[in-house]
Amino acid sequence: MRDLIVIGGGAGGVPAAIRAAQLGGHVAITECGNLGGLCMNRGCIPFGHMMVASEILGNIPLGKHMGLDFPAVSKDYSALVRRQNEMTDVMRRGVKGTLEKNRVEIIKGRAKIAGRGKVAVNGTAISCKNIILATGAKWVRPDFPGGDSEEVINSDDLLKAEKLPPRVLIHGQSPWTIEIAQFLHRFGSRVLLVTKEKAILSNESRTVTSRLTKSLKDEGIEIKTKAEIAAATKKKDGLHVELQSQAGPETVVVDRIINIDRTASLRGLGLKNINLDEDAPFLKVNDKMETGTDGVYAIGDLTVPLSKHYSHLSSEGGIIAAENAMGLDSAMNPMTLTRILFTQPQVACVGLTPKEAEKAGYDVMVGEAPYSMNPFGMIISERGTVEVVAEKKYGELLGASFIGRGACDMASQAILAIRFEATVEELSRASFPHPTLSESLVEAARDALGRPIYLPN
Amino acid sequence: MRDLIVIGGGAGGVPAAIRAAQLGGHVAITECGNLGGLCMNRGCIPFGHMMVASEILGNIPLGKHMGLDFPAVSKDYSALVRRQNEMTDVMRRGVKGTLEKNRVEIIKGRAKIAGRGKVAVNGTAISCKNIILATGAKWVRPDFPGGDSEEVINSDDLLKAEKLPPRVLIHGQSPWTIEIAQFLHRFGSRVLLVTKEKAILSNESRTVTSRLTKSLKDEGIEIKTKAEIAAATKKKDGLHVELQSQAGPETVVVDRIINIDRTASLRGLGLKNINLDEDAPFLKVNDKMETGTDGVYAIGDLTVPLSKHYSHLSSEGGIIAAENAMGLDSAMNPMTLTRILFTQPQVACVGLTPKEAEKAGYDVMVGEAPYSMNPFGMIISERGTVEVVAEKKYGELLGASFIGRGACDMASQAILAIRFEATVEELSRASFPHPTLSESLVEAARDALGRPIYLPN
Repeated sequence: MRDLIVIGGGAGGVPAAIRAAQLGGHVAITECGNLGGLCMNRGCIPFGHMMVASEILGNIPLGKHMGLDFPAVSKDYSALVRRQNEMTDVMRRGVKGTLEKNRVEIIKGRAKIAGRGKVAVNGTAISCKNIILATGAKWVRPDFPGGDSEEVINSDDLLKAEKLPPRVLIHGQSPWTIEIAQFLHRFGSRVLLVTKEKAILSNESRTVTSRLTKSLKDEGIEIKTKAEIAAATKKKDGLHVELQSQAGPETVVVDRIINIDRTASLRGLGLKNINLDEDAPFLKVNDKMETGTDGVYAIGDLTVPLSKHYSHLSSEGGIIAAENAMGLDSAMNPMTLTRILFTQPQVACVGLTPKEAEKAGYDVMVGEAPYSMNPFGMIISERGTVEVVAEKKYGELLGASFIGRGACDMASQAILAIRFEATVEELSRASFPHPTLSESLVEAARDALGRPIYLPN
Repeated sequence: MRDLIVIGGGAGGVPAAIRAAQLGGHVAITECGNLGGLCMNRGCIPFGHMMVASEILGNIPLGKHMGLDFPAVSKDYSALVRRQNEMTDVMRRGVKGTLEKNRVEIIKGRAKIAGRGKVAVNGTAISCKNIILATGAKWVRPDFPGGDSEEVINSDDLLKAEKLPPRVLIHGQSPWTIEIAQFLHRFGSRVLLVTKEKAILSNESRTVTSRLTKSLKDEGIEIKTKAEIAAATKKKDGLHVELQSQAGPETVVVDRIINIDRTASLRGLGLKNINLDEDAPFLKVNDKMETGTDGVYAIGDLTVPLSKHYSHLSSEGGIIAAENAMGLDSAMNPMTLTRILFTQPQVACVGLTPKEAEKAGYDVMVGEAPYSMNPFGMIISERGTVEVVAEKKYGELLGASFIGRGACDMASQAILAIRFEATVEELSRASFPHPTLSESLVEAARDALGRPIYLPN
């Protein structure tokens, strides 16, 4: 009898299994594909790798301003992919090693829940006290006419491509669409980014949305908002895509449409056998990662809409589910979910936006410190900014948005401040190293209090 | 009658004056040189700028591994200096603007204290309730025979040079020596770094010292430890420098010796008129920045040894001194002093090292998470690491050391954690974005607790 079976060896399942084993559990993890899941094999890691290459290219103009000239830069996509594959191979072996070191049993195969405390893998039934579901999400084909043609690809197809498509339309709700758009543009593709929303990242702070849009457009990426694909038809000169937008109908010709929308993988898991709904858009869980069925937890992309498909949310949930399965009492802090983009400029948004804070009933104060007033920001000529959101009564920090270099790492400062229930007054007194972009977080806190030191107005 | 006169318009004086004015004070600031002081005009900012150029060059090998080739890179030092000068000019005007916006009176001229509440500038006596001394430090000529020759230069001379010296010996105790060494090496100079200590950054954690030393040596910078200059003599083929080290005496031939040791600027300030010692190595202050003479505060490089000459310490002290001068009760947190280097790899050390924590009587636990096990660290092939130091009884974080990309910004996470008296248990539960280097801080906290998730051993 296992204490725990984790179904799915991805970004959420792996830390769940390890944590439960560290707490003394007899733990097995099942995986039908590659250990590491989407994140490591076909998501965050390959895209992170691409974005670093993209950033190196993006720093060439800054270098030129500094007297460094790089004539005749050459780009070899196949070399990039080769390094990427070697790296994920090393990482997969690393994950296997850490699971084994922690004495987690690894079972290869597709698992199905046969009933409470019963999981079947490869035709064999295994008994367990607890189950953590961590199967992630699966691709959704877009539903416009022509959406099933082979020119409509997802990111798995892109990662397998030997060369990059010259003309691309990127489409859908995943934040990765924006990363892919910038990467392809910098590697030479002509890129059109299409969203049905009124802006890219339309749920984030306006400051972030408008700065990111401007940056992408300035470097030559075309963006169409409030636009949808009506149909796509293959012709001799490429895929003819009919777009519907406010401006009326138009047709663009591309080589590929990239759509990376995904939805929770609920079917085929045997959820009916434990009274869970396999037809829901995703599996609802509480802050302890409990599904409502005793001894069954769920984490990660399986439990949230596409806008929250973030690996760090999966791994946080994994550790919480594991601890609860092993008898501890852990809960997720709902205030520190961080939405990130590794584009240049990077984007990271923690907690509530000003609008969300107002909606939640807070009397809100906002502070902002642009990189153009930050000494390091001036050195790198970066058009970023840091915005903080706090409530007025105690000054408690509710959220922060970062756009610009370092955003995804600086976000962790806001995560800690929110976790420790810091006020903007306390934050304003932190002495951060000089000259760093992080100083802008402190200055934004001072700005919220109406006493910035280095802001001109 | 002014509420406050700040003597010195540098990294400490400027925020001090602005903060006091924000608290309703009638404030004047005196400056005999350029507003912004050493930091902005001849220190952090020009060196930060150089280090960014140096980092762009340092990323070329990573680019090559990713399929990006940059043949025939050219480096134009005069273009770098031109941009640098334009930038500091903008910054100086910015500082003037923010002082004026906050209604701080700017007095050009050398100030001298005439007595308690009396400052003389340009022959005119001005009365005030409080004085903040923020005059910084001044260059010290090295005392070996030949130390007064014109081939022995400081960083001001380097910043004014039209071209870089082909062969350089860099010498002294300032952390900037290491930044300058790497910059000059990458811009084509042959560099020898000489220290009398047993290692560079010998007071920091051994992990940091050894990794930094290895990185610098690997890229071709020569380092001599436990070595001192016995004499320097100008000859036809260059400056002959006699070195004394464990290995015995030897002579090296260089074009320039760079020495940037500095000491507190106490003389000529009129300190005797208010019973302060102008012959001390630096002016002692308590955690409120009080000098011991009523109504006289001192901050920044004037109040600390060379190893603590950091702008962020000056500006933190400036705000504290200003608040106390204006009747508030503020004190410096001695636990969050951060020592940084913008080399590649960057270095940032916050709070106590393991050795210092032991000396202070703590029962110490240490955790470490190398970048080689961090997914983003693997992407950028970075040999960095994060080390945390905590005491065992409550698990309170006492210090952290970072070496590798992003170190100087990640340090601020540790600063916040220490300010909020976080335990490593709490730190281990923060959900930092994936894939970022910051995740290594959380993993180091878990390692200190004996339960890392992603470390192999």
